[in-house]
Amino acid sequence: MQILVYAQEARSYIEALREAAPEADVFGVSSLAEAEPFLEGTEVLFAWGMPPAIIARMPRLRWIQWLGAGVDLVVRELPPDVILTRVVGAFSTVMAEHVFAYLLALRRGVFAMRALQREHAWRRITGLSLRGRRLGVAGLGSIGAEVARLGRAFGMEIWGLSRTPRGEELCDRHFLPSQMGEFAAGVDCLVLVLPATQETQGIVDREVLRGMRDDAILINVGRGSAIVERDLVEALRDGRPAMAQLDVFEVEPLPPESPLWDLENCYISAHCSGPSEPRLVRTFAAANLQRYLSGQPLVGVVDPRLGY
Amino acid sequence: MQILVYAQEARSYIEALREAAPEADVFGVSSLAEAEPFLEGTEVLFAWGMPPAIIARMPRLRWIQWLGAGVDLVVRELPPDVILTRVVGAFSTVMAEHVFAYLLALRRGVFAMRALQREHAWRRITGLSLRGRRLGVAGLGSIGAEVARLGRAFGMEIWGLSRTPRGEELCDRHFLPSQMGEFAAGVDCLVLVLPATQETQGIVDREVLRGMRDDAILINVGRGSAIVERDLVEALRDGRPAMAQLDVFEVEPLPPESPLWDLENCYISAHCSGPSEPRLVRTFAAANLQRYLSGQPLVGVVDPRLGY
Repeated sequence: MQILVYAQEARSYIEALREAAPEADVFGVSSLAEAEPFLEGTEVLFAWGMPPAIIARMPRLRWIQWLGAGVDLVVRELPPDVILTRVVGAFSTVMAEHVFAYLLALRRGVFAMRALQREHAWRRITGLSLRGRRLGVAGLGSIGAEVARLGRAFGMEIWGLSRTPRGEELCDRHFLPSQMGEFAAGVDCLVLVLPATQETQGIVDREVLRGMRDDAILINVGRGSAIVERDLVEALRDGRPAMAQLDVFEVEPLPPESPLWDLENCYISAHCSGPSEPRLVRTFAAANLQRYLSGQPLVGVVDPRLGY
Repeated sequence: MQILVYAQEARSYIEALREAAPEADVFGVSSLAEAEPFLEGTEVLFAWGMPPAIIARMPRLRWIQWLGAGVDLVVRELPPDVILTRVVGAFSTVMAEHVFAYLLALRRGVFAMRALQREHAWRRITGLSLRGRRLGVAGLGSIGAEVARLGRAFGMEIWGLSRTPRGEELCDRHFLPSQMGEFAAGVDCLVLVLPATQETQGIVDREVLRGMRDDAILINVGRGSAIVERDLVEALRDGRPAMAQLDVFEVEPLPPESPLWDLENCYISAHCSGPSEPRLVRTFAAANLQRYLSGQPLVGVVDPRLGY
C-alpha cells in the first residue's frame, strides 16, 4: 500500500506513519512537482496546503486524511468513492487558548498597558473581569466545546449556537443558526468556531453586527466566510462590537490593502490559532491510520453534503 | 458608633456600609484634610491609600478593615489593641485573570501579532500551549489558590510554595521558602503572590533567577519586595527568565528612570492586577462589618507578627 504525505512539514509525519503502518510505503512531499511520481499509485493521502484539484489525478485514492480541521476547499473536489477525514479534537486546546489569550488581553487592557510602558507612564488600567459575563460560542464541535469549558472555568455564562441540538448540554442556553441575531445581541463575547458551509456563509452580517452590544468582543477562529467583512469594517468603525479579533478572513493571506489592518479596535492574527506544532496532528493522524488498517471506523469522517 | 471610610472612591462604599450598620454614623473622605475632624471619634476605619501614620491619632480606633489584600505598610503602624483585617478572596478572580491574560498572551505571542499587524504583515506566529507545562505558584492564599485552579483548567502541572503546608493539596508538589531555588528552577511559569514580609524580602535574587529556565516566564502580582530588582534587570538582559510581567515594584510608582521600562522582554503594569471595580471589595467589607456588629469572628484578620 502506498501512502503519500503532502505538507510543508511532511517529514515530521513520516516516522509516526511508518510506525503505524510498517508494511506500507510512506512518501513525503511538499510541492506538486515532488508529488507527481506518487499520484498514480497512492491509496491513502495525508495532506494540508495541497492544491485540491490534483485529487482528480489519483485513481487509486481511497482515503484522504486532511491534516487540519477545516476541509471546505478539499470537500468540493472529493470523488464520491473517497473518504475524507479531518482532524478533530487535536486543535481544541490550542485554539481555545488563543481565544482566551485575546479575551483576557482585551478585557484586561494589556495592549494599553504595553503602550503606557513605552512612555514610561505609570497609570492604572481599569480591567474588566470575565466572571459573570456571557460567552457566546457559535459552533459546538470539539473546539467550541473546549472554549465553552474554559469559559465555565472563568465563571462565565455560556450561550451556544449550532446546527443541531448536539452540544446543547454545554450551554446555559442553546440557539439554532436561524436565531443568530438574538444570540449575538445577548452576549458579551462572541466566539465563532463555525465551519465554512452554505449555511454559515455570511451568517454574521450588518444586521447581526448592528444588534451587538457596544462593549462586546467578537472573535473569529473558524472560517472567514462566516463574517461579511465589509459589514464588519463598518461595524468596527461604529464601535459595535467594541473590538474584534480575527484569525481567519474571506481572502487569505489578508490583502495588504484591507481596511481591517488599520482599525485600532481590530486585532489581526495570520490564521495561527491552530497548532503550529505538528505533534498533536501527527498523533491523531497515526491513530486514524491504525484504524484504517484494522478496518475500524475512522474518526473525523466528513459528510460531503454538510461540508464538515 | 462612628465609621470612617478613607479611600479614593470612599463614596462608593458608604451606602453598602450604612446598609450593614444602619445605627452607625458613616463618613467618607479621600484626603487627610477631610479626615481631620473624624480622627478623634472613629471606632472603625475602612481605608486604602491612607497615610498609615495617622492611625496614631485615632484614640478610639478598635478595628481597621484595609480595603486591599496587602497590608505591609499599615501593619507597621498598628497599635497593639487594634484589629487589622485585609481583604481575602475578593481579589482572587481578577488577579488570577491578570496572571492568565499575560501567561497566555506571552505564550501565544499576541504582542508580536500586534506588531506584525502594524506592518500589514501576514506571518504565522508559533504559539506554545500551556497544556502540560509546569506552573509554579509562590504564595498559596486565596489568590494563589485561584491561580492554581485556573492552571489546572488549562491542563498545567502545579507546583506550589508557601510558608506552611497549608495549600499543599492544591499542588502536585509542595515547597517551603527555603527551597525557592529548586522550585524556581523546575517551572515553566513562575507566579509570585507573596506578601511583603521579612521572610519574602528579596527571596527571588540573582541565584534564584540564574537557576531559572531560559524559556521561563516570571510574573509578580504580590509585592515588589520579593524580587531583587537590580538582579532581575541583569537576568532579563541575559534572557533567563525569558520574560517577566511585573505589576508590583520595590518603589511605586516605578521611577521613570528604571531600566525595567525599556527591557523588551519585561511587561509592566501599574499595580492594577487587583480589582479596580470597588464592587467586590465593598461586598467583602460590608459582610465583615456585619460580623463585627454581631460579635462574630472577622474574616481576613492579620497576624502582626507574620505581617499578613
